[in-house]
Amino acid sequence: MALIVHKYGGTSMGSPERIRNVAKRVAKWARAGHQMVVVPSAMSGETNRLLGLAKEVNPGLLDDAAMRELDMIAATGEQVSVGLLALALQAEGMAAVSYAGWQVPVRTDSSYTKARIASIDDQRVRADLSAGKVVVITGFQGIDEAGSITTLGRGGSDTSAVAVAAAMGAAECLIYTDVDGVYTTDPRVVPEARRMNTISFEEMLEMASLGSKVLQIRSVEFAGKYRVPLRVLSSFTPWDIDIDEEAKSGTLITFEEDEKMEQAVISGIAFNRDEAKFTVVGVPDKPGIAYQILGAVADANIDVDVIVQNVSHDGRTDFSFTVHRNDFQRVNDLLANTIVPNTGAAMFTADPRICKVSIVGIGMKSHAGVASTMFRTLSEEGINIQMITTSEIKTSVVLDEKYMELAVRALHRAFGLDAPVTQV
Amino acid sequence: MALIVHKYGGTSMGSPERIRNVAKRVAKWARAGHQMVVVPSAMSGETNRLLGLAKEVNPGLLDDAAMRELDMIAATGEQVSVGLLALALQAEGMAAVSYAGWQVPVRTDSSYTKARIASIDDQRVRADLSAGKVVVITGFQGIDEAGSITTLGRGGSDTSAVAVAAAMGAAECLIYTDVDGVYTTDPRVVPEARRMNTISFEEMLEMASLGSKVLQIRSVEFAGKYRVPLRVLSSFTPWDIDIDEEAKSGTLITFEEDEKMEQAVISGIAFNRDEAKFTVVGVPDKPGIAYQILGAVADANIDVDVIVQNVSHDGRTDFSFTVHRNDFQRVNDLLANTIVPNTGAAMFTADPRICKVSIVGIGMKSHAGVASTMFRTLSEEGINIQMITTSEIKTSVVLDEKYMELAVRALHRAFGLDAPVTQV
Repeated sequence: MALIVHKYGGTSMGSPERIRNVAKRVAKWARAGHQMVVVPSAMSGETNRLLGLAKEVNPGLLDDAAMRELDMIAATGEQVSVGLLALALQAEGMAAVSYAGWQVPVRTDSSYTKARIASIDDQRVRADLSAGKVVVITGFQGIDEAGSITTLGRGGSDTSAVAVAAAMGAAECLIYTDVDGVYTTDPRVVPEARRMNTISFEEMLEMASLGSKVLQIRSVEFAGKYRVPLRVLSSFTPWDIDIDEEAKSGTLITFEEDEKMEQAVISGIAFNRDEAKFTVVGVPDKPGIAYQILGAVADANIDVDVIVQNVSHDGRTDFSFTVHRNDFQRVNDLLANTIVPNTGAAMFTADPRICKVSIVGIGMKSHAGVASTMFRTLSEEGINIQMITTSEIKTSVVLDEKYMELAVRALHRAFGLDAPVTQV
Repeated sequence: MALIVHKYGGTSMGSPERIRNVAKRVAKWARAGHQMVVVPSAMSGETNRLLGLAKEVNPGLLDDAAMRELDMIAATGEQVSVGLLALALQAEGMAAVSYAGWQVPVRTDSSYTKARIASIDDQRVRADLSAGKVVVITGFQGIDEAGSITTLGRGGSDTSAVAVAAAMGAAECLIYTDVDGVYTTDPRVVPEARRMNTISFEEMLEMASLGSKVLQIRSVEFAGKYRVPLRVLSSFTPWDIDIDEEAKSGTLITFEEDEKMEQAVISGIAFNRDEAKFTVVGVPDKPGIAYQILGAVADANIDVDVIVQNVSHDGRTDFSFTVHRNDFQRVNDLLANTIVPNTGAAMFTADPRICKVSIVGIGMKSHAGVASTMFRTLSEEGINIQMITTSEIKTSVVLDEKYMELAVRALHRAFGLDAPVTQV
């Protein structure tokens, strides 16, 4: 008997019928002798519907007071879900009780719409589990010191589930979702992409940060910090699938490197085309110039991703960076009106049609030549690399958007990810 | 400057546009110098939608654990409303903050789906008002001692508003609704029906209990207990109507009899056709027989309204009572299978096609002959009276359903309610 946390996404909770199926699956686990805590998301579409209403009554929505009200409104989606799931569990003959974040309580800071969890009180939940109840807790939300409802931002239910698992010392946190695990890359781009049985926590963190949408990155950080064994698996298997089979399905995010029988050099290929690139050309190369450029961007609350400064040449240098494509126009205006005039740069170029492709793998730490294999592969395909950044377990390149699929497929093949591996 | 409570029904909150209009109206009152507390209902249709979802996942829904979850789900409708209204007020340039019942807190007992308010803490709200904020509080809900969300039952937002007004010592509680006040009877049945400028608390209590749907009866009881001046008025006047005119519109429920310049003998005619009548014929007339019959009905959780026992005759008597028409089949079965065999009654008759018509008026206390005027009027119309009950300020008769409109119109005319009265 173990304490297990299940998390179900909005699609799994999308209709009364699906909620009844979730209840049947949870009941199966409870009947197998496990203590069950379940964290469901809002029914699919519900959060958007609620935020749409908010936008209609107040299109401005800027200050802290408005953000507080947004959280008050958005948090109801998950509250409905937990009540419905508890009812569905009761219909299955299980004792079940639901709690909103404030009832547990899940304490957070006061950063409305993007709060961070500070602590979780496990007393109430533990008492219910001891009394034989299934406990259903809202994802996505908590309560701040002033007693106001806060939400954790998009995908926050993943983080809630992992945080609850950490607070309760759960044996495993199972994230049920609409994909059946973590893949070497997106199967829609590379049909040969394989589901990984395991992936290291560090690799998952890079995959998540690079746009692999399977898990919210904060949930992976949380799992790493508290070493919560985390499994991503499909909620579309039949609910009455054999429990031992289900318990081994999907992808396990591990902390023990030696759990893997073989260590692929590269675990996966991540990519995204949500970025835009800017280059400030002919900047006088003097101390503080990077701050002059990026400080103005940061002051406008725009996140910068890749940054590259080329070597100086005649006292002048070129400075490139990427931002989210949604921020393209604002950055363009900033450069034209403020940054270029202030820095004495010659000009700037802007390119919204780029993509970023990354190879991720713990093996990069110990294997030389991984980056050069990447560059050679792209070169053989005639793909020009515009920018390069690296970390311990990741190398990213910025390319013309039109080469994205070609690059991902070539790299997937070059690093041997197409080939089936021994199952661990 | 006064502390004023506004309550808006689901229709008034039915769309983002209507919510913006509510915000404009409240802002007008706040700008006139009043401290404003607003209690909105859920958007129209929302509570039914939520309870429909609950029914789909668990059609049984019987025990306390399930009722707790129903309240968890249903309470979200009002939580969305308060957030939206606070946002709309902010869009109007007002400082505004919303609270769910548990945040105030509004403390209740643990009778899920029909909880009763025990106390309201006014500290938090008062601090916000002093800081110049409009405070928006969820209707319909509170929190019990265990920290679970409770709801007050259908129409509970009226009760919430009055309870908040009582706790805060508000100068007046304005109930904005889709009718423009309390009428002498339903204008759809009697076109000559007049809106009353004032009605006494006791009369309003009888009107509400008799099926006049303007106010939830518990809210009237609450207003009476704490002497909260209560006004029913239309939410469909333009929001920018002159505030002094608005403040005098609708119907004021008063506690001071001498506020009224003239005292009509009868204030209004109430009616409903939601009842069904049963007569147990030839019951042995011995002590305890009423309990034998009605005890079985009460044990089945069925409310009995009118009860009449005829005089005994040859040691046997007839015993009649009415119940809500929804309970017709259950009571019919109870009588056939249990009550008639157990009491040794000869037989029973059942009639779902009845109606109840009542005249209500404080004046009945001091004016003789009111009931006989009622009976004479009905007799002149050839309407047979099946049952009669009376209270200090009310006389009700049970009639064949087909005579309802005729009876109401005749009584409305007979008691002079058609004639315009001097406005007070």
